This record gives sequence, structure tokens and C-alpha cells, in this order.
Amino acid sequence: MVENILKNVYEKTPLVHCITNYVTVNDVANTLLACGGSPIMADDERDAVEITAICDALVINIGTLNERTIATMLKTGKRANELSHPVVLDPVGTGASALRTDTTFKLLKEVKFVVIRGNVSEIKTISRGKGTTKGVDADVSDIITDENLDEAIAFVKELSAQTGSVIAVTGAIDIVADSNKAYVIRNGHRIMSKVSGTGCMLTAMIAAYCAANPGNNLDAAAAAVCAFGLSGELAYDKLAKTDAGTSSYRTYLIDAISKMDADTLKGGMKIENR
Amino acid sequence: MVENILKNVYEKTPLVHCITNYVTVNDVANTLLACGGSPIMADDERDAVEITAICDALVINIGTLNERTIATMLKTGKRANELSHPVVLDPVGTGASALRTDTTFKLLKEVKFVVIRGNVSEIKTISRGKGTTKGVDADVSDIITDENLDEAIAFVKELSAQTGSVIAVTGAIDIVADSNKAYVIRNGHRIMSKVSGTGCMLTAMIAAYCAANPGNNLDAAAAAVCAFGLSGELAYDKLAKTDAGTSSYRTYLIDAISKMDADTLKGGMKIENR
Amino acid sequence: MVENILKNVYEKTPLVHCITNYVTVNDVANTLLACGGSPIMADDERDAVEITAICDALVINIGTLNERTIATMLKTGKRANELSHPVVLDPVGTGASALRTDTTFKLLKEVKFVVIRGNVSEIKTISRGKGTTKGVDADVSDIITDENLDEAIAFVKELSAQTGSVIAVTGAIDIVADSNKAYVIRNGHRIMSKVSGTGCMLTAMIAAYCAANPGNNLDAAAAAVCAFGLSGELAYDKLAKTDAGTSSYRTYLIDAISKMDADTLKGGMKIENR
Repeated sequence: MVENILKNVYEKTPLVHCITNYVTVNDVANTLLACGGSPIMADDERDAVEITAICDALVINIGTLNERTIATMLKTGKRANELSHPVVLDPVGTGASALRTDTTFKLLKEVKFVVIRGNVSEIKTISRGKGTTKGVDADVSDIITDENLDEAIAFVKELSAQTGSVIAVTGAIDIVADSNKAYVIRNGHRIMSKVSGTGCMLTAMIAAYCAANPGNNLDAAAAAVCAFGLSGELAYDKLAKTDAGTSSYRTYLIDAISKMDADTLKGGMKIENR
Repeated sequence: MVENILKNVYEKTPLVHCITNYVTVNDVANTLLACGGSPIMADDERDAVEITAICDALVINIGTLNERTIATMLKTGKRANELSHPVVLDPVGTGASALRTDTTFKLLKEVKFVVIRGNVSEIKTISRGKGTTKGVDADVSDIITDENLDEAIAFVKELSAQTGSVIAVTGAIDIVADSNKAYVIRNGHRIMSKVSGTGCMLTAMIAAYCAANPGNNLDAAAAAVCAFGLSGELAYDKLAKTDAGTSSYRTYLIDAISKMDADTLKGGMKIENR
Repeated sequence: MVENILKNVYEKTPLVHCITNYVTVNDVANTLLACGGSPIMADDERDAVEITAICDALVINIGTLNERTIATMLKTGKRANELSHPVVLDPVGTGASALRTDTTFKLLKEVKFVVIRGNVSEIKTISRGKGTTKGVDADVSDIITDENLDEAIAFVKELSAQTGSVIAVTGAIDIVADSNKAYVIRNGHRIMSKVSGTGCMLTAMIAAYCAANPGNNLDAAAAAVCAFGLSGELAYDKLAKTDAGTSSYRTYLIDAISKMDADTLKGGMKIENR
């Protein structure tokens, strides 16, 4: 399964159009190259609608949204839907401001997403229609633990049924689910939260994996979450042997993504079907 | 003293809202994470005014300002003042264009800053109302040396009295002062000028330190300047043992920030009270 | 020859104004510092026209263009022409959307460029007035090989005659030519295509080299192409001794640029005069 998903990415080199925030955009571009895809960024409406047509997938990340780019997101998302390109949403900080929350709901109303990836607070905001997001990090009260896992899985499946999208909730424990099936993934390392943009990077990687594996969004998204989390573990193993810090860790993380292969992924993925 | 300042940062993880330039924004975000804070960026007026309310501090950096973001800076700065959040100004390149100079003075008129950090040419522009800034670097004629140090300290104290802000002038010799007291700091390494955005990174770190240490802006700013400069020295020590260049140095710098602790800082800070 | 070109860069520290995309802007800034120049970015019309006057060169890179920045590019380009500053064009993705293609032709009509640098698909778009660019990468059908090299050289010389600009086409084999003389350069390594923004970085470096070597744009551009490509080779040599990946490679690349000197360049440049 995982072999085929990775093989398809490496063979097809999916071109992923990203309308994304300017904070982490360079890491997003380099993550796409590292994982076997190719990035292009365009956020002017006239440019983006045309650029998306030559691409294989679209990422909409609302991290540093503004009036101009919100209009581009809506119009480009619809265009990508017309072309049957997979579109992935990263609702960064939704719940933290009315503009972010409103934009998220406008996008959900007008654009069909194959996958929505966020932290648990962002995903809860989407479910509740309002949020308590503390900036771009999840609220402590929302965190998924072994104690509330069954409840969390039911919640994610339900949200998938409502939205028609695969939902990827990432944190210490990740859940990737559609309305019928949930994967619980325990890859990753807590130091990843000390690098800005790991969520943005993963979202783009999910888009590349979905683009290369049409009709298989749930498994493609789960494989991307495993591969990204495992890369974070391998990067930590490397860091632990040195006296380096968080910036070296960021480098090691993207390095590990660029060196991921099916054998490594199969040997290291911590995934269960619930 | 320094122990408490660092302890407060590590315990409170201050969330710092940055309206900052897109050139160095990723390093700013990762520096905030490395020093014990947390970043969020928002520059659309409707988003930013609301986002700043959930944060602990605000950074206004005019590096790639435009009409839209200038309006956001003014409105968000006033909102942060209402909320009594510390607001820190980085007047990047002020004096190099009328737009940058005018924006700086508009900001100084409408927003109260706890700290203003810049190179000596930028700070002189603020004092004189006009400047001779050569881009984003200080003019040679302005540089602070041991010969003109007394004069420079008097100038900085005077500017602090005028503006009501702690003034942090950084360069080979740093001065951090309010109207009564000045610290002269000699940490840092000249290779830091070969990395884009070290000033922006330091400004954000000052904001995190001030946010975690309310009522203690002078000492918090001075501690941040020492910690950042010392990180630059430790990064150079590491660089000197390798055949690496300026990009590795950037990584080592943020690594050192992420590993800074009170003992290291106390042992390495070169600060005198003038 | 090459000694003088590098010496001039190191002695003059040319200040390069970049109106460039936000994806790779930080790497562009750090590449300029690494190669011996100094960066400043400004893209608001009121700011940019004034900032360009204190600089030594201007880069116009259309990577994430929008209505506001297109107007700035045109106005600032004309101002730089009036001041006789070298202006370098990077037509990122031209041919991939009407907006990018139209902007390129508007720029070519209204601004005089000393050098235009692009991949072969972008350069062919400029010649044909329309393109088949697949995003930001060259089309396979366009690639320059030993088989079509003579034809490619003739094409590049002809385009230089038409535009009055030195043309730098970069890829596995690079051609840098004016209407009379062409250099064929075989430095570089294919892994460079796994780092986002190598083209943008090289374009900025060409601008720094041209600014420091007035009246010598062809040789300056060719030297920059050699130095950048050789840095890519040296970075690969370093990478090959480790288990690192593409993000470390990016660091090694900028490191190598920061350590380049005339002896290394003379020993490693693979250039022939055609």
C-alpha cells in the first residue's frame, strides 16, 4: 500500500499550487521538493486561476490572509474543483479571529476539499462554528489523549461525514479519518512544535500525496502524516547525537523527508486502524 | 536578575504578534520559538486588531511596509496600547525613504512603544527627524566607538526621555537605555552582519522578554540584547571549528538561542552600567 | 579577469534592491550577503522608487507578482534606468499565465535590462511571445543538450540582439551571451533543482556582480553563473560525505558562496567561449 503511494509521488512529481502564508512559504516549497513534488506559488487572482490549471493540486492555507488573497482563494478553489484537482485546506488560526473563522466557513461553503488538516482547536472550530484557538497552537483543553481518544475519533468521523472531506487532526496523537474509517498515528516528536510551520509543511505534503494517488485520499493523507512524523523522529535521532538546537532540527527534518523511502516508512510508521 | 528574566520567559511562553517584513519573517518566527516565546503573524487590519488581543506583545517592523500594512500597524498598535501590551518598534531603514521616515513618525505619534530597537543610523533619524541611512545598514559616520561612547550614551538617554521608550541601539557596541540608566553591551560577533535579519530577530526577542517581565522593560531588553549577542558568539565558536559559511552560521545562531540558559548567559554577558 | 570581477564585488559591497517573490526572498537576501553584496527589499511604489536611488542595482523577479507590485516594478525599473543602475530581470514562470507573460512584455517594453536570466522555457517565451512553461521549471522539450547546443547558442545571441540585454539561460548547460559572444558553462549539479529558489538567488548574484563591474555585464554575469554553479558542486561534494538531505544542501550552497574566492573559481570554472 505505502509502497505504491510513495512510488506514485516519486514517479509523477505532482505540481502543487500553494496559496499560503508568507511566514513559512519557503519551508513549504522545500518540503514539496523534498517529498517528491514540485511547488508553485501564485496569489494574485488573475495569475492564480490560470496557474492552478497547469497544476495537479491546490493548497489553501489561511495563515496570513488578507482581503486580496481571500478573494483569490475562493476563485482559485472553485477553479480547481472544476478541474477535479484535489484541494487541501489548512485553516491556520481559525477561531482566533472573526476574519479567519468567517473565511474558513466561506471556503467550506464554496470549495470542496479532499482533505482538511489542522490542529485540534482549528478542527473543533470548524465543527462548532466558533473557536477558542490560542493563536496558531492548539488549546490545552482540546488536546487528544489516550483517555479521550474514542470520543475524538467519533468526532472526527462525524465531521468528515458533515464536510465530505478527509479530516487530519495533528498533534501528539494524529487522527486521519473519513466518515467510515479512522487511522490513529503516533509518529512525530514533540520538538517539532519548536519549528515554525510544521503544520503548513505537512499540509502541502498531503496535497502532493493526494495528487499522485487519485481516488485514494484517506490512505494518501495518512501516509503523508506518517512519513512527516517519522521524518520528525529521524531528525530527532540525529539531533540527539549533537549539541545542536532547533534550527538544525528544522534542517534535519526536511533532510529526512528528502531521504524517506518505502522501506523506512514501513519500518517506522506507527499507525492503527480504528 | 537575569535568572528571573529568563525564567519568566520560559514559564510564560509569551505569544508575540508580529507585523513584520516578509524578508526575515521566518527567522523571526523561529527565533521567537527558540527563545521561549511563540509567534503569530497577521497584517490584515480586520485580522490583526483581533489577533493582537489574544497575544502578550506586539512587534511593529517597517521593513517591507506598504499602504495596507501601514494602516494595520497604526490601528493594531493603538489596540495593543489599550490592552497595555508591550509594543516594540523596529524602524528598519527609516531615513532611507520618505515613506519609511514618515511612517516611523506617525507610529511614534500614535502608538506608545516600550522599546525602540534599531541601528545607530535609524535611531539618529528618529532623533533628528531625517536621516542618512544607507539602506538597512548603519552609516559608517554614525558608528558608536569607544571614542564617542559618552556622547552616544547621553544622546540615547535624551532620546529615551523624549520618546518615553527604552532605546536599544545595536551594532558593534550596543547601548540599551532609558532616561536615567544606560547599559553598554559588548556581546556579539561581526559575522552576524552577514546574516539577513539579525536585527529583526533581536527585536522580536526583546518583545518576548518584555512581555514576560512586565514593568521591567529596560532590564528585559538588555537581557535580550545580551542573550542574542552571546548566542552570536557561541555560534561563531562553533563555526570556527568547521569549514562552513554564513548559512551554517545562521543555523548555529538560532540553535544557540534555543539552548541559552541563565548560567550560560551570566557567564558570558558583557554588560556595564553607565 | 575573474579576479578583478570578484575583487570589485568584495571591495564595493554593491547594495542590490530586489523586488522579488516572497517564496525565496530570504535566500536571495542571504545569497547577496554571502557573495559580497548587500540586500534591500522594498515593493511599495512610494518606497521603492526612492530606495532604488540609494542602491547600486535593481532586481525585478516576477515570482509572486500582483497588481500592486507590477506597478512598482515598472515605475522603479524606469527610475533605475534614469540613474543608469544595472537592472536584471528574472521572468519566473513567464509563459505559465497571461499575467506573467504580459507583465514580462510590459517590463521589456518600458525598462532596459542589462541581463535577463531564466530557464530555457522562460527565455523561449520571451522570444516567441508565448510559452509552454510548466510552472517554474523548464519543459523537457526545451532542454539544452550537446545535440542542440549550436542552435541554442544562435537563438540566445539572436534574442540578445533583439532585446539589447545579456541573456543568461540556466539549466544543466548554461548559456550566457550577448549578440556577439556566447559563454557555455557546465558548472552546477542536478541536485540544485531540489532547492527552491536557486534561480532567484543566482539572478540577485548576477545583479551584484554587474553593479560592481560597470560596462562589463557579459563577463560579470558569466562569472556569477560560474561561481554559483561551482558553489553548487562544492556543496554537493560536502553533502556526499554525509547522510544529510536537501535542506542541508541548501545551507552548504550558501556556505560555499560565502567562501568563494578567485583561486577556487579559476580552478573550478567550466566555461568555454563560443
